[in-house]
Amino acid sequence: IDSQDSATLKAEMEDMYPADVTGILYELDSEQAKYLVSLLDTKIGAEILAALDTDERRDFLKSFTSAEIALYVNEVDSDDAVDLLNEQPIKVREEVIALLEDREQARFILDLLHYDEDVAGGLMQKELVKANVNWNMNQCIEELRLQAEDVEKVYAVYVVDDNNRLLGTLSLKRIVLAHKNTKVESIYNQDIIYVETYRPAEEVAELMQRYDLDVIPVVNVQGRLLGRITIDDVVDVITEQASSDALAMAGVTGDVEEDDTVWEQTKARLPWLLVGMMGGILAAKFIGFFEGDLKVVPAMAAFIPIIGSTGGNVGIQTSSIILQSLADRTGLDTGVWERLLRMFGVAFINGIIISLIVFGFNLLIGNELQLAIVVSSALLSVVFLASFMGTVTPIVLDKLGINPAVASGPFITTANDLIGYGVYFGLAHVLLGL
Amino acid sequence: IDSQDSATLKAEMEDMYPADVTGILYELDSEQAKYLVSLLDTKIGAEILAALDTDERRDFLKSFTSAEIALYVNEVDSDDAVDLLNEQPIKVREEVIALLEDREQARFILDLLHYDEDVAGGLMQKELVKANVNWNMNQCIEELRLQAEDVEKVYAVYVVDDNNRLLGTLSLKRIVLAHKNTKVESIYNQDIIYVETYRPAEEVAELMQRYDLDVIPVVNVQGRLLGRITIDDVVDVITEQASSDALAMAGVTGDVEEDDTVWEQTKARLPWLLVGMMGGILAAKFIGFFEGDLKVVPAMAAFIPIIGSTGGNVGIQTSSIILQSLADRTGLDTGVWERLLRMFGVAFINGIIISLIVFGFNLLIGNELQLAIVVSSALLSVVFLASFMGTVTPIVLDKLGINPAVASGPFITTANDLIGYGVYFGLAHVLLGL
Repeated sequence: IDSQDSATLKAEMEDMYPADVTGILYELDSEQAKYLVSLLDTKIGAEILAALDTDERRDFLKSFTSAEIALYVNEVDSDDAVDLLNEQPIKVREEVIALLEDREQARFILDLLHYDEDVAGGLMQKELVKANVNWNMNQCIEELRLQAEDVEKVYAVYVVDDNNRLLGTLSLKRIVLAHKNTKVESIYNQDIIYVETYRPAEEVAELMQRYDLDVIPVVNVQGRLLGRITIDDVVDVITEQASSDALAMAGVTGDVEEDDTVWEQTKARLPWLLVGMMGGILAAKFIGFFEGDLKVVPAMAAFIPIIGSTGGNVGIQTSSIILQSLADRTGLDTGVWERLLRMFGVAFINGIIISLIVFGFNLLIGNELQLAIVVSSALLSVVFLASFMGTVTPIVLDKLGINPAVASGPFITTANDLIGYGVYFGLAHVLLGL
Repeated sequence: IDSQDSATLKAEMEDMYPADVTGILYELDSEQAKYLVSLLDTKIGAEILAALDTDERRDFLKSFTSAEIALYVNEVDSDDAVDLLNEQPIKVREEVIALLEDREQARFILDLLHYDEDVAGGLMQKELVKANVNWNMNQCIEELRLQAEDVEKVYAVYVVDDNNRLLGTLSLKRIVLAHKNTKVESIYNQDIIYVETYRPAEEVAELMQRYDLDVIPVVNVQGRLLGRITIDDVVDVITEQASSDALAMAGVTGDVEEDDTVWEQTKARLPWLLVGMMGGILAAKFIGFFEGDLKVVPAMAAFIPIIGSTGGNVGIQTSSIILQSLADRTGLDTGVWERLLRMFGVAFINGIIISLIVFGFNLLIGNELQLAIVVSSALLSVVFLASFMGTVTPIVLDKLGINPAVASGPFITTANDLIGYGVYFGLAHVLLGL
């Protein structure tokens, strides 16, 4: 394919969807990719650029001049244009904006550039179709015709007053069905859900999910219509949120991906490993105090792992379930007491079963009855304590406004380990009469 | 509010969005909730029912007769109707279907009932607007008018041939802008992405995300148009998938929620706790072999926890990053060797840093140099082994077609623990010359 047979290549790619061409680009080096994209229509090339992942796109665009980038930026939606430009060095960014042929696009981009990525303003695109409340259907359709080229998916026409204040929406279905002379005023829908530019992205996602919206208008504090956010961008927010929470729980901070550099990955992981290490050092110091006991009953050491792992496992299970229900905010706010009660019920059954099995095992391998009692009581206590910690920690962090996923994994595990060893050696010291 | 002041209540609720009324219902008991819903228009009541969570809805509908349920089922979209009916006992289900006034809805429901929940057929709704390829715009608009009442969001008109075979789509924008006498044939879009009824839900979600679709048509094996899947249902699939993966990694199987019964939660959690317990018992047996060594150097016991927790933490971090990139399938398929190489790079830096700190700690608290060497070499080996396991296990499971999230958490942790203790005691036995 690399024999530069441009005619065949071009024909083949034109039969494909842009998203599929994107898939192919990932497997090529920058030069080849640039060659492929340059064969295509600028419009399709722009769509492909918009679909690329951040890292790949940054690498890919390094071989482009500002003028070449500007050609593509002319064609993409304003939200994608801003994402793309934000990845570029400031110099390139400013050159591209200056070189844009489509001056409206340049204005859109300048408007959007100053919003953070994680608020509604950073998700919105400027492309939309709006109609004045005083117009009739004919004027609406005229407007639609004018703007149709720029607006990929229309969804609905926004209805505004003379000051560009958002009043409501008018669905395309209604426009199709209405008489040409009908006034917008008499048929538009005044029940409208919107967001302000400063709302966090997660709130936008929640709102759109709760009300099953495909698109949501964005207004400024004066209620003036500035743009809209479409569901595909919000789906990205939702999946990114889920994946960054999963990583956070596993003790990986930031949006690290497998193909990031070794250094980036180390930065994201080392801090949490150090938290775990500190826990381990504390545990070592702590067990050191009981060295005398261990000399007398060396079999005690054998149960250090099961105490630690049971506490860890129970804690992670519990906190994951709590995190799930915190993320789910369906409007119900279960009381802390009810939560604890249910968790204790589960802890009781799980704890009893595990303690009994381990008790049996201890007797079976001929350990002393007293050691068996110490190990199993410690296990039962650890299950309870880990359930408690796993329930309370995420709820408290959430109340404090900290993302509960971030600190749940490594923190809870480390804390549970330490508590577990404390209970184990404490019980042993007392019950074994050491 | 419970003084049954129905007029005020009704007025208040009518000002709210159905999704908000749903939020209120969660906080009421069934009787109160039924009373509230009965005040509302059937159509709004139906929307509220469709928005309720499975468990709440099942409880709530227990106090309804089949005839009452049928009234609401008449009004909801066919996909929601099927979900609702699938939660009911077979007797109620059949009664409701028999009692449906809207016979088309009854037929839709019967068509949909035989699809599994987790394939495209189980996600689709029958409500859509289609047009014959030979029609002109006027006929299209007529059809739209006829079907407009049943189809909440139109998105696009599907174009079919005389045999109901799907040919393409026609956007509402085009209909609005086209001349009344234009033939469908000459303006419809033949590039269409569709799914077959038997495709798994995750595949549908992936497809809609990749191509940024708001709606996707569903066809049977003959290519006949059967229904469509809208993005809101797919967003639910995506979030459910993410949450069930997160739970699976934490050792919780099935879609357990915090408000499930103690017994359901125990069933979901106990098996994995038992896996961890078996690991702990094995570790105990294993450490038991080295009891003699522990008698000589009791300080060794103090470092059992740090070996276990470091292995566990590194393994979970590594596997989470791999899981993320497996879930991300952007078309790039990094080679196993490249993956391992990068992982080893990260493992090397993290391992060296942790080993050195612990080495320093050991010397600081006055432990013997030899013990310090044993502990730190064991830590370094554990970091490498856990990185290897954390990389390979999810990839292998994925290749075998098993959800890699399910077995990653507890399995990897337990395996890493055991390997870690093996390395530690093995090294100690050799290096300390015991």
